[in-house]
Amino acid sequence: MQIFFRYNWMVREQWYQWCEDVVHDELLQHRTGGVGSILQTLFHIIDVEWSWIRLLQGKSDFQESFENYKSLEEVRNLDNKLQTEIKEFVESWNESMEKRPFLDPQPDGSIAIDAWGEVMRHVIAHQIHHIGQLSVWAREVGKKPVSANVIGKGFIRPEA
Amino acid sequence: MQIFFRYNWMVREQWYQWCEDVVHDELLQHRTGGVGSILQTLFHIIDVEWSWIRLLQGKSDFQESFENYKSLEEVRNLDNKLQTEIKEFVESWNESMEKRPFLDPQPDGSIAIDAWGEVMRHVIAHQIHHIGQLSVWAREVGKKPVSANVIGKGFIRPEA
Repeated sequence: MQIFFRYNWMVREQWYQWCEDVVHDELLQHRTGGVGSILQTLFHIIDVEWSWIRLLQGKSDFQESFENYKSLEEVRNLDNKLQTEIKEFVESWNESMEKRPFLDPQPDGSIAIDAWGEVMRHVIAHQIHHIGQLSVWAREVGKKPVSANVIGKGFIRPEA
Repeated sequence: MQIFFRYNWMVREQWYQWCEDVVHDELLQHRTGGVGSILQTLFHIIDVEWSWIRLLQGKSDFQESFENYKSLEEVRNLDNKLQTEIKEFVESWNESMEKRPFLDPQPDGSIAIDAWGEVMRHVIAHQIHHIGQLSVWAREVGKKPVSANVIGKGFIRPEA
């Protein structure tokens, strides 16, 4: 489980670096699909990761609006601020947490029960999916996207 | 590990169903980013999944060209044909395989060593990333994309 989170954090950092070379208006430009802009996608990924990990711990989730984070620097600072707690939770993850029930109130008033392991995988896939959208928009900007490769980044040391 | 593969197979099947309601030309229409079209993306996902799982087993990988699979039916049949062997390998996956070394010849003649667990995660993230691209192109077609949610699909039964 941890490997995919580490992968996502690395890719996110590489996208921040990618954004440094793109003019601000392009980052906020409305685009087809997803949540609508490059910067808002990064904000949305942080929001969703943080909110689910807070909720699993029985804490309040993230309620702020993108309206207050409309620069690369603000999004990046927000990410840095929230990552300490997220990393602590993720690094303490173990098999015994996989099937723990999370009570998830639905819009219709009913309560769904999700296994914690499903929530964690949801968070992982959520980022990778949205980063796929960024890779299309990157080409619209005329710039090569960040690589999505997992291989070659040293996440697991092979046996000798 | 198996959960993400099952998720990917389910999402792929849902995209085939999605494609059934889209005219053929839209599926082959060249688009910005990724491998260039909706159908070729689905073909590419199958190709990459199959090839890596064949290579881990010391078998030959997939060498066919998309030129021979330019219809939804042909791509879907190919997927069905290859999935039996892939599923057998994935369902037999266990922790002891995580760090096994895979010798991966590079274009420059050198040989990289990847852990099997890294290869498997690469295959998982590869599909999710490309499906993210499909979700943008789906909006270009004017159609709602398939949901990428992991939650609510019953992959893990929570403890009572």
